[in-house]
Amino acid sequence: MKINGKQYQTIWFDSKDGYVRIIDQTKLPHIFETVILHSLKDVVYAIKNMQVRGAPLIGATAAYGLYIAYKERSNLKFLFDSAEILKKTRPTAINLVWAIDKVLNSLKKNSPKNIEAFLLREAKNICYEDKKYCESIGLHGLALIKNISEKKKNKTINILTHCNAGWLATIDWGTATAPIYKAFKKGIDIHVWVDETRPRNQGSSLTSYELNNEGIPNTIIVDNAGGLLMQQGKVDLCITGADRVTASGHVANKIGTYLKALSAKDNKVPFYVTIPSSTIDWTIDDFNLIPIEERSFDELSTVSGLDEKGNITKINIYPEGSKCLNLAFDITPNKYVTGLITERGICEPSQNSLKKLFEK
Amino acid sequence: MKINGKQYQTIWFDSKDGYVRIIDQTKLPHIFETVILHSLKDVVYAIKNMQVRGAPLIGATAAYGLYIAYKERSNLKFLFDSAEILKKTRPTAINLVWAIDKVLNSLKKNSPKNIEAFLLREAKNICYEDKKYCESIGLHGLALIKNISEKKKNKTINILTHCNAGWLATIDWGTATAPIYKAFKKGIDIHVWVDETRPRNQGSSLTSYELNNEGIPNTIIVDNAGGLLMQQGKVDLCITGADRVTASGHVANKIGTYLKALSAKDNKVPFYVTIPSSTIDWTIDDFNLIPIEERSFDELSTVSGLDEKGNITKINIYPEGSKCLNLAFDITPNKYVTGLITERGICEPSQNSLKKLFEK
Repeated sequence: MKINGKQYQTIWFDSKDGYVRIIDQTKLPHIFETVILHSLKDVVYAIKNMQVRGAPLIGATAAYGLYIAYKERSNLKFLFDSAEILKKTRPTAINLVWAIDKVLNSLKKNSPKNIEAFLLREAKNICYEDKKYCESIGLHGLALIKNISEKKKNKTINILTHCNAGWLATIDWGTATAPIYKAFKKGIDIHVWVDETRPRNQGSSLTSYELNNEGIPNTIIVDNAGGLLMQQGKVDLCITGADRVTASGHVANKIGTYLKALSAKDNKVPFYVTIPSSTIDWTIDDFNLIPIEERSFDELSTVSGLDEKGNITKINIYPEGSKCLNLAFDITPNKYVTGLITERGICEPSQNSLKKLFEK
Repeated sequence: MKINGKQYQTIWFDSKDGYVRIIDQTKLPHIFETVILHSLKDVVYAIKNMQVRGAPLIGATAAYGLYIAYKERSNLKFLFDSAEILKKTRPTAINLVWAIDKVLNSLKKNSPKNIEAFLLREAKNICYEDKKYCESIGLHGLALIKNISEKKKNKTINILTHCNAGWLATIDWGTATAPIYKAFKKGIDIHVWVDETRPRNQGSSLTSYELNNEGIPNTIIVDNAGGLLMQQGKVDLCITGADRVTASGHVANKIGTYLKALSAKDNKVPFYVTIPSSTIDWTIDDFNLIPIEERSFDELSTVSGLDEKGNITKINIYPEGSKCLNLAFDITPNKYVTGLITERGICEPSQNSLKKLFEK
């Protein structure tokens, strides 16, 4: 997708200089800057500190991380140790472990002569596949939006999304935004309600930013507001991403997703979750087994933005001495999810439906 | 209640110099400052710009506003015109209209010789009554908390509250916090989850601040987090205030209340709303008739706090060109409310129960 009119991916290998580059998402929306990942340390920092974030992008970055680690030392022990370090950078997103295991298993199976070139190809493949899957999700979601648009006699479709499951969370297209981009490109009249998504405001800082850059009408609301908008009939459809979906269709996603799903149910608004199959954790049925990441205090107590002079400034917003707790994800039980939009199509959030869709 | 160890009310008439003073709540929690209300203009500014906020305090300030307006011009036409201006300062809180009508009706009925003294006495009475009602609410809520504490065998009771229905929203004690203060003073082991409450963060800036000042353990969470905490069994009770309650017990309160009530219902957590009877709108049954205030864009897009040097700084957090919508309240239908805690006792949120409680 575009930033300032130029086409980008969130992570890419530049064949001119041989470097892997990312967009530093911690500086968005105020500053657009790309960063070179030189070493394992850079990759770990980028994931932990959310220069890259979003389950699919975390997975892709970890895959590139293996290539970068091997390039750094050309040593298999260091590579496997690096894999373990990378797996621990974030706990909830399943794609991280999935991508690392996928690359290492392929490495063991193929025993390539040129390991460095092999690892680079594998990372590129993960990116290629993710992009393809996101586009498929977009097309399946487009059919859904088209349907609603016809029922509404082509009036504006209001879609609510939470956090950023946009192209900035993947390689391109995004998961939750893929149907939105596809619908917009087809000329369907859409407007997006963007949940701000405290504490890190990925909704306002990233989703609104990327929709602006593609010219898609959108309005930022606080995380408290979605319920009222649904009560007032101003939301036709909710679409979110997910960080992990259990084999029975329970959804772990950015904290606050559950509250919106409850409100969607209460107001009969369809609530869809978009996922590439890499987000499905086939080993877990019970959502209580999903680890919920607890992040640092200061992600809540400090906020960054532009001061009057246009400089990025960090301010402390809490009273002196106040404690806070920063839980990053919550669980939306499958009974509150209308459907899962995957690269293979849309299915009910149940073990049977998921199995059926992916058994071939 | 106390600030920095000293006892305060949110609004008071100082008999030494004859001025009405308020705490400027827009500067909390970083700066504690009191402001003199010299004129109608000052009062209108204070209510509109939320130097004072919270339904009961808005009502009390409007009552003092009538006294201040009459003192300014000693002219009945100006007084009645001022009443109309004051009524329009905020649309959702019913106490505003209630307090003004109460004072003016009493004025017409009594035709006092010394109108200025009469208006002052009426404003003081409203404050006195509010304080008394809040204490009663506290005692009724205390019984409820005691009950839960006994069931939990005196383990810590975790109470979640939204926005600030604390003493800073009233004259003293607060509505939602009154049971908390009463329970804490009785030695019951309590801990409060404080919803940050975007966009103006009255939860973190005011509720956490006032609880800190009274030594009550509390933890700030983002508005997205309450659902997960309830899923995890970490909330025993929700208590909020209200800006208006219909005759049938539907609750208009700070945006986001509805989402917490949905989650409380889903997780079988009792959800209580505390109100002095002045918050009940006996003229409305249908919650669709409650006007929902839409406030300004920049309450969302800018955030105030302390910069590194300790100066209060305002920063812009949204992407250039992004639109946003600022709806201040939502509706919690009565089916999601366990009970209403009023100065007369606790009742079901239904027309019958409310009528029965207040008919005498």
